[in-house]
Amino acid sequence: METQTQQKIKEPRITLVGAGPGDADLITIKGIKALKAADVVLYDALVNEELLEFAPETAVKVYVGKRSGDHSFSQDAINKLMVDYALNYGHVVRLKGGDPFVFGRGFEELDHAASFSIPATVIPGISSSISVPGLQQIPVTHRGLSESFWVLTGTTSDGKVSADIFTAAQTNATIVVLMGLSKLAEITRIFKNQGKNRLPVAVIQSGSTESEKVAIGVIDTIVEIVKEQKIAAPALIVIGEVVSLHPLFQPIREFYDIVAEE
Amino acid sequence: METQTQQKIKEPRITLVGAGPGDADLITIKGIKALKAADVVLYDALVNEELLEFAPETAVKVYVGKRSGDHSFSQDAINKLMVDYALNYGHVVRLKGGDPFVFGRGFEELDHAASFSIPATVIPGISSSISVPGLQQIPVTHRGLSESFWVLTGTTSDGKVSADIFTAAQTNATIVVLMGLSKLAEITRIFKNQGKNRLPVAVIQSGSTESEKVAIGVIDTIVEIVKEQKIAAPALIVIGEVVSLHPLFQPIREFYDIVAEE
Repeated sequence: METQTQQKIKEPRITLVGAGPGDADLITIKGIKALKAADVVLYDALVNEELLEFAPETAVKVYVGKRSGDHSFSQDAINKLMVDYALNYGHVVRLKGGDPFVFGRGFEELDHAASFSIPATVIPGISSSISVPGLQQIPVTHRGLSESFWVLTGTTSDGKVSADIFTAAQTNATIVVLMGLSKLAEITRIFKNQGKNRLPVAVIQSGSTESEKVAIGVIDTIVEIVKEQKIAAPALIVIGEVVSLHPLFQPIREFYDIVAEE
Repeated sequence: METQTQQKIKEPRITLVGAGPGDADLITIKGIKALKAADVVLYDALVNEELLEFAPETAVKVYVGKRSGDHSFSQDAINKLMVDYALNYGHVVRLKGGDPFVFGRGFEELDHAASFSIPATVIPGISSSISVPGLQQIPVTHRGLSESFWVLTGTTSDGKVSADIFTAAQTNATIVVLMGLSKLAEITRIFKNQGKNRLPVAVIQSGSTESEKVAIGVIDTIVEIVKEQKIAAPALIVIGEVVSLHPLFQPIREFYDIVAEE
């Protein structure tokens, strides 16, 4: 009897794990090892559910997804669940889309764990900000085209376009906007105000998954092309000369070259 | 005899694989699968050599590392080797530190493969730009502190500080500088010119590995602290309010609070 009781008392601990952009094979070895040692997995909406199979059959698996507009699980509720499960079950793996610290509110979860003195560690994930353009063979940096990249959110906590986007439009950095599809018209307007009407743009839906779709255009045309291609969220926007390296940009370049000659 | 000859003729193909920041467990499952199917592995200086064990024993493993200042393997030489090996051996895995497209010159390699009509794919890696701060529990984004992050190189191809850093110093983005340790004094001067003398800064050496070291300070003090702590390359610089979340920043905050009261 005593042994059974002792087995039940597990040290509470929390591991934040980045699940990557969607393709289940884009999680790290370290992430898999954490899942295999999980007593509980709390997972988000954009996490590939195939990953749950790496956790023990006996592990509790709880969906805590929140998509924009659906606030069934607030961040507070997730924080509370995470700590409750850790105290009662032991090792909680908090499985988050992409990387836990790229608009993932990961630090808030660490902070909450710390306030209960529960040890918490972080296992980075493949962020969609770099990998989703990359899988389309659009490099976020490339000699002669871009010496840096700037990753922003399209929708800030107050629902407005991030003020940083106004500054970003003035630079030569590759601009990557996450969660910005609904703000695309507004974002392109900011670039037009800088005279960047022909700057190449890619909008990539569900990068790394079977429902991946891409729209390629320039600031002036991308809103129309996204509508034609019926691109839907989740989608990522890449703005910058590096997008011109995508094969679909070649006909666009030729079109503008002809226009210029006429 | 005929069978033997046929076995020898393998389809040339190239897979660019991101090896992650250093910890061998921070490669993806997909990266491991590529290594297991490699006939040749061409690997860089910052790649963890433990990863080579995933490749077949019979695979050719070639170190093509170039560290800054050591140009024994130029990019041209690497491109040529990669194509020669693919044509003669079959599947070349080009194993690169971090992610292939974050200052990795990955697109140049893809482009070179394409010019020989050799099919090439990309498997993203964990970029040090996000993961190395993250493993120190410094989030690149955090509500109320930073809505975006901007990743730059300290040393551009012409050896100068990137012009983007002057713009970056004027924004509220979290600034991450790779390969910038030798330019730290110059970079901090740029931030001082913006009056950001007390902006928190972290310099992290060999993140995710056993030789990881961190220096935490502010723009005014970080050069001195880096010298005291004997931080050496490879190192990454993080500049921004998010650095104040690191436990080592607490005494610094208290010091400035006391100074302010006096």
